Amino acid sequence: MINKLNNTISSKQPIGVFDSGYGGLTILDELIKSMPEYDFIYLGDNARAPYGTRSFDVIYEYTLQAVEKLFSMGCQLVVLACNTASAKALRTIQQRDLPRLAPNRRVLGVIRPSVEVLGSLSKSKHVGVLGTVGTVRSESYLMEMAKLYPDFIVTQEACPTWVPLVENREFENEGGRYFIKKHIESLMAKDELIDTLILACTHYPILQNEIRKVLPDHIKLISQGNIVASSLIDYLERHPEIDEVCSKQGMLKFYTTESISDFEEKASVFLKRELKAQHIALN
Amino acid sequence: MINKLNNTISSKQPIGVFDSGYGGLTILDELIKSMPEYDFIYLGDNARAPYGTRSFDVIYEYTLQAVEKLFSMGCQLVVLACNTASAKALRTIQQRDLPRLAPNRRVLGVIRPSVEVLGSLSKSKHVGVLGTVGTVRSESYLMEMAKLYPDFIVTQEACPTWVPLVENREFENEGGRYFIKKHIESLMAKDELIDTLILACTHYPILQNEIRKVLPDHIKLISQGNIVASSLIDYLERHPEIDEVCSKQGMLKFYTTESISDFEEKASVFLKRELKAQHIALN
Repeated sequence: MINKLNNTISSKQPIGVFDSGYGGLTILDELIKSMPEYDFIYLGDNARAPYGTRSFDVIYEYTLQAVEKLFSMGCQLVVLACNTASAKALRTIQQRDLPRLAPNRRVLGVIRPSVEVLGSLSKSKHVGVLGTVGTVRSESYLMEMAKLYPDFIVTQEACPTWVPLVENREFENEGGRYFIKKHIESLMAKDELIDTLILACTHYPILQNEIRKVLPDHIKLISQGNIVASSLIDYLERHPEIDEVCSKQGMLKFYTTESISDFEEKASVFLKRELKAQHIALN
Repeated sequence: MINKLNNTISSKQPIGVFDSGYGGLTILDELIKSMPEYDFIYLGDNARAPYGTRSFDVIYEYTLQAVEKLFSMGCQLVVLACNTASAKALRTIQQRDLPRLAPNRRVLGVIRPSVEVLGSLSKSKHVGVLGTVGTVRSESYLMEMAKLYPDFIVTQEACPTWVPLVENREFENEGGRYFIKKHIESLMAKDELIDTLILACTHYPILQNEIRKVLPDHIKLISQGNIVASSLIDYLERHPEIDEVCSKQGMLKFYTTESISDFEEKASVFLKRELKAQHIALN
């Protein structure tokens, strides 16, 4: 199906945005604000979310299925709006699968642009990364920082309770605040010179207000949504051949592997708007 | 493959024990203690766990895949050691799929035996059910209680943070205790006459000590492991034709849809013993 679609590249198509669940909607939200004329297809693998605790093999397999599905729907460009998928699957997909599947199409992640901004904002050259167990264990942020900013000290902290706190809206109480404080203090205790922190999971921006309450004022806190949006605009300017095949009618479509009503209800909270979704199978 | 295996029913086979993840190991632990001579195959769908928040359709589809896999491995009897799967998939599998797939095989759940004991232990006839969102929404406990004990008052409480607390071992601290206390108090506030509570999720027995600390002494707290074990022994006594095809060499096998090393590490904590697992694909 993909090969067939490669032959119809001339028709313009939406940009695909993939996430394991709802978190990628915080990225999509910024994409819509910054690039309102573009069309987007959001695909959430909610029936198998969260990915953050899963192994490399499983995350790679599930992410590749999603990318192939978005390709089969016509997308020429897919953004992995998920740190875990970007950390554990992007490189293999770009290097091994794309040349075979669809050499003219592109898959981009959220880590590279985030690392660029993280390095540019820190003065002390000591930065912190808050992420899922999967993202932290992959060491993707460490590797990307080492390439771009080899003289920086990067310290990571895995926050495995934060996604459940967000998904169950349990972060504005004593229990939620305990786990937010715990990980911020643990990270800062590992390196007191940190002056910039990145929320390296797309769920975490929802916790931003609570995190700010326990974070010393001088420490910068970065979310990825606007970083990814700026980076995508920049990418399309540098690659007019890709921009040319992106359709621009301000259209949004949502697909989920879960039940439509569950998705519509939860997604509208993340995106702060009503939406209609369609069901899709990935395996 | 299933039809083929139906013809070889004469050979004795292990009992299949299925759970979405690790929680079912608390059931398996009791089965091994009570029925040490039987062989068991444990199958954990860890690559797609947890099921507790998923929709009916997804849980049914995933559970049926697991049952078919255990059948294809020869199991004549499968225990769904998962409340969410028992609540949302068991009835359809028993009524619609079994007659078609394997009329001589059996699939049992954990809810019916739990309800029998729950009703027998309560004097006030006011009982409480602590479970996942999926189990609570399914109302399976309410329906089973209404059949067996129609004059009882059953009150439910969904505890969506408890599975992540167990899986991340974050329950013996201030944050964990906040969420344990929150749901116990919320349930007791709904009905002060409750004298018996059931932990209707296989993860929750791990929280038993912490729950006991915030629960008034006169309230009985029931775990499912030994209930399911007693019920299974009773079932096999009443169905010698099924007991006859259960192999009895004290053998244990573990299969997971996740990475083997991740499973072996986490499962050994639940089962308090070292174990070797094999990878299996379900879709």
